[in-house]
Amino acid sequence: MHLPGLDIVVLGEDFDRASVRYVATWGPKPGSLSDLPALEAIFSLGAGVDHLMGYPGLPDVPIVRVSQDDLTHRMSEYVVMHSLMHLRDQRRFDADQRAKRWEPDRAPPIAAQVRVGVMGFGALGQDAARKLKVMGFDVAGWSRTPKAIEGFEIFSGEAGLERFLARTDILVSLLPLTRETRGILNRDLFKKIARDGRLGGPILINAGRGGSQVEADILACLDDGTLKAATLDVFEVEPLPQESKLWTHPRVSVTPHNSATSDAEMTARYIAQQIRRHEAGEPFQNVVDRARGY
Amino acid sequence: MHLPGLDIVVLGEDFDRASVRYVATWGPKPGSLSDLPALEAIFSLGAGVDHLMGYPGLPDVPIVRVSQDDLTHRMSEYVVMHSLMHLRDQRRFDADQRAKRWEPDRAPPIAAQVRVGVMGFGALGQDAARKLKVMGFDVAGWSRTPKAIEGFEIFSGEAGLERFLARTDILVSLLPLTRETRGILNRDLFKKIARDGRLGGPILINAGRGGSQVEADILACLDDGTLKAATLDVFEVEPLPQESKLWTHPRVSVTPHNSATSDAEMTARYIAQQIRRHEAGEPFQNVVDRARGY
Ligand SMILES: NC(=O)c1ccc[n+]([C@@H]2O[C@H](COP(=O)([O-])OP(=O)(O)OC[C@H]3O[C@@H](n4cnc5c(N)ncnc54)[C@H](OP(=O)(O)O)[C@@H]3O)[C@@H](O)[C@H]2O)c1
Ligand SMILES: NC(=O)c1ccc[n+]([C@@H]2O[C@H](COP(=O)([O-])OP(=O)(O)OC[C@H]3O[C@@H](n4cnc5c(N)ncnc54)[C@H](OP(=O)(O)O)[C@@H]3O)[C@@H](O)[C@H]2O)c1
Repeated sequence: MHLPGLDIVVLGEDFDRASVRYVATWGPKPGSLSDLPALEAIFSLGAGVDHLMGYPGLPDVPIVRVSQDDLTHRMSEYVVMHSLMHLRDQRRFDADQRAKRWEPDRAPPIAAQVRVGVMGFGALGQDAARKLKVMGFDVAGWSRTPKAIEGFEIFSGEAGLERFLARTDILVSLLPLTRETRGILNRDLFKKIARDGRLGGPILINAGRGGSQVEADILACLDDGTLKAATLDVFEVEPLPQESKLWTHPRVSVTPHNSATSDAEMTARYIAQQIRRHEAGEPFQNVVDRARGY
Repeated sequence: MHLPGLDIVVLGEDFDRASVRYVATWGPKPGSLSDLPALEAIFSLGAGVDHLMGYPGLPDVPIVRVSQDDLTHRMSEYVVMHSLMHLRDQRRFDADQRAKRWEPDRAPPIAAQVRVGVMGFGALGQDAARKLKVMGFDVAGWSRTPKAIEGFEIFSGEAGLERFLARTDILVSLLPLTRETRGILNRDLFKKIARDGRLGGPILINAGRGGSQVEADILACLDDGTLKAATLDVFEVEPLPQESKLWTHPRVSVTPHNSATSDAEMTARYIAQQIRRHEAGEPFQNVVDRARGY
């Protein structure tokens, strides 16, 4: 509808494979991307492309990922809301309400006294960081390559990680899942997060990818005090299995991988816009770098 | 400590009443403000002064209220956090977690699709509005007198109230308690809030004063669908009585009048600064207008 003159077909149905020029997919079935001789690009419907990177025989065409404002804004809503809930100890006030307990005299710190560290300082990380800062938080970032962005101290690579963690009270991960970030949120890393902050212990918020976290370590670290609390939108296995202890841990908040869903209509517009650019001879935007994996 | 050369005494203790020049108080006991012949000003330790306005025989000196950045910022944290929790249906996801239910497919609207109306567009209302807007919400304000503030449509007075409510999905009250605002948050008003919004019904957040709300109406309106949900930091009677149905209503969030506590140290600094201004011949800031009552 946004692309007059182009036909849209659904992979798996019957159609002329030789005429397919673009594919949009969440995660293609094995084989479904082969024998597409006219293929010009693959659009990843998710913002992450980790599921595509492991696809056997991925055609050698540009992989274009979705990066749209509505998705970015929704992620920032999630990150800001959950950071504020930790800052203001909202779970404690929820428990007080259930117990009909009126105890105003626990005044948490203000945002300016709390340091948020955003791991993954790309499209999502930067927007979240900017909004966290408007709310008053003391925000820094961590990325793979060095960056200079007005208003933020940005650490990078292995070398910058320890200093980044040492100034962080709330750790927010918005990392893509790659060889390098798989399992990165583990006990070793949690031990390096600051313990001298105002919240009584390190807090983890992961809305990047579940493959980056070691859930056994998160649970053990919550129980031995290495972590104070965790908010998780993504999991090693999704849907989160019924038997996972994360569901019931009193200091874990679980959301079902929907911190930042994108509107189907807006995604359709975005893809149409990319196709129009391409057909006008301009480069696609947000093309995945296969070597780095994101 | 911030005012070398001035002695600080506690009302109620033994001291020379004739030498008292300044009083700082939450709510003075009857009689404690009489016989202070040298009194030059009264500092209200709360941001609201409704408790002082009703004080019999209030001395005829300036009433200076606290208005400090830390308090303002804390209030904005509260308003933004609870607005986001309503936007994103966080209570539903809390319930899903308790039930180990993985249901990502309910995508709430983004902030830009939701209209917040801020009643009381003073120090607190303006800061909250600005931050709500950064988060993406469509924000308007309502005040007693007409105002022009870049970026916001501001309605005023009785005349503007209906139009203001008709474009509001989440109603945030940051009103002071005065003759005019007592009981203003009642069924009549709730009926005028927009019902064509994206959240499935009007939402009330009151962090101004409990005297502005009619709790029987709130409960009845929640039950007959006139209101969808409410977040209340303030109550007709505080602490909220054990028998109040607000404690246990599934769509009410209760906090114990601490949405914006001020740091004692910062309050002391603020008062010291006002006294220094005054002693240097400059006017006090944030002086209460007794006629309007705030
Ligand atoms: N939970 C959800 O609903 C949801 C929704 C959307 C997206 N996501 C996840 O969020 C991820 C990020 O999205 P985005 O649009 O912000 O991606 P992006 O713009 O590509 O940003 C990725 C950021 O991560 C950094 N990074 C990558 N590998 C790293 C490493 N080994 N060490 C340190 N930093 C590293 C990058 O560093 P450089 O800046 O140096 O390149 C960049 O700053 C997606 O990949 C997806 O997995 C989740
Ligand atoms: N829950 C808490 O912890 C907490 C903490 C701090 C404060 N508060 C409450 O928040 C209130 C507001 O504080 P603030 O510093 O923002 O006060 P402020 O700067 O004096 O602002 C008050 C606002 O309310 C408006 N207003 C007053 N009467 C009105 C009426 N009859 N109709 C319409 N608008 C009216 C004023 O209109 P104009 O602009 O036209 O004057 C002004 O915009 C305080 O009075 C206090 O009760 C609560």
